[in-house]
Amino acid sequence: MAIVLYDLAGADTALRFSPYCWRIRMALAHKGLDVETIPWRLTDKAVIAFSGQGRVPVIRDGDTVVSDSWAIAEYVEATYPERPSLFGGAAGKAHARFINAWADNVLLLGVARLILRDLLDVFDVKDQDYFRESREARFGMTLEAVQGDRETRVIAFREALAPVRLVLGKQPWLGGTTPSYADYILFGTLQWPRCVSRFELLASDDSIFEWRNRMLDLFDGLGRRARTVG
Amino acid sequence: MAIVLYDLAGADTALRFSPYCWRIRMALAHKGLDVETIPWRLTDKAVIAFSGQGRVPVIRDGDTVVSDSWAIAEYVEATYPERPSLFGGAAGKAHARFINAWADNVLLLGVARLILRDLLDVFDVKDQDYFRESREARFGMTLEAVQGDRETRVIAFREALAPVRLVLGKQPWLGGTTPSYADYILFGTLQWPRCVSRFELLASDDSIFEWRNRMLDLFDGLGRRARTVG
Repeated sequence: MAIVLYDLAGADTALRFSPYCWRIRMALAHKGLDVETIPWRLTDKAVIAFSGQGRVPVIRDGDTVVSDSWAIAEYVEATYPERPSLFGGAAGKAHARFINAWADNVLLLGVARLILRDLLDVFDVKDQDYFRESREARFGMTLEAVQGDRETRVIAFREALAPVRLVLGKQPWLGGTTPSYADYILFGTLQWPRCVSRFELLASDDSIFEWRNRMLDLFDGLGRRARTVG
Repeated sequence: MAIVLYDLAGADTALRFSPYCWRIRMALAHKGLDVETIPWRLTDKAVIAFSGQGRVPVIRDGDTVVSDSWAIAEYVEATYPERPSLFGGAAGKAHARFINAWADNVLLLGVARLILRDLLDVFDVKDQDYFRESREARFGMTLEAVQGDRETRVIAFREALAPVRLVLGKQPWLGGTTPSYADYILFGTLQWPRCVSRFELLASDDSIFEWRNRMLDLFDGLGRRARTVG
């Protein structure tokens, strides 16, 4: 029986763009687990109330419900140990937690500041007021202002990715010789702007751009086949 | 036979403060390997010319010479596999590389900007001109200017440590349930200012402050027994 994944969707339900849901899409593919995705809208809190909270990703695996991308990754690793490992052991998982924290704390915010106004346009009309109000409250300014002057600011964003570049200068994947959950963390975070905006965050001569291309090819082009606004 | 470590020293040769040498001091203790440290001064390039480069740490283990802290950690892990692991396997090592890159790229620079002028005072007189000239060229300003207004800027430095704080909210060490080389990377980077400056980088109610206290207790207080200027 396939694992059910509640997956953030736009007005176009084929448009799936959550950075956290993408981490899990890739993690499930890495494990070779079948998945059935259910498009979920930002204001459909009642639909996932069974999970005890209001955000996606949420998965249902038989009778088990898990929310939060990190917790889901831990769950599938522990539940399907005979399949390819996401973390490569206890220390691999412990160290990946730092990469997860860095991505959530530094990278995700950096991406949001470059594409937040574009993101508004992909939401269903019924989600747009909620999105604008909640995000403008969080950032203390309009969505337009958050995204303003991005052609200049993208330079600093690229510089903030320097640790990734240093690692990719030494090994092909964050996971070493093969992709690990660390790669899916970073990929999900970058797949988000790729799906919802025409603004390119990466320079084409960047080693991270090359890495992303290889990520897009994984699992029969799972990431590359995704709907984008482009 | 003990491993010989060329270790950066101040005018007071008991003062050992290199962030990279501290990573290795801790890593060798983790492995339970005996070490004989040789105090090395910044301008003693000829003394380590046998290593083919001009920076410490350099180790000599029997006939083998290794320089660069990451390469040394890899060497001792590969050479002494029966002793406690620094990385916990291939993925653990691959993911630790990101933490190493983040520490070198983000954290080390952040520390330098808070204590660079204090650092000048610990060097031997014969090293001070070299230190001032090379660092002022690198930063494009005087050492005094680099360190200026640090009481205000330390707030942003502490915020940049947020990913570490997130991890320590979930597990006692960066390595998970036990310390790993990831902990020694961070510890070395923070032991550096602790040894050379009276300026406190961490707030006493910070979980990273608590973690550093536990790090200082490891290996019979190896870090805590270190000479400081304080």
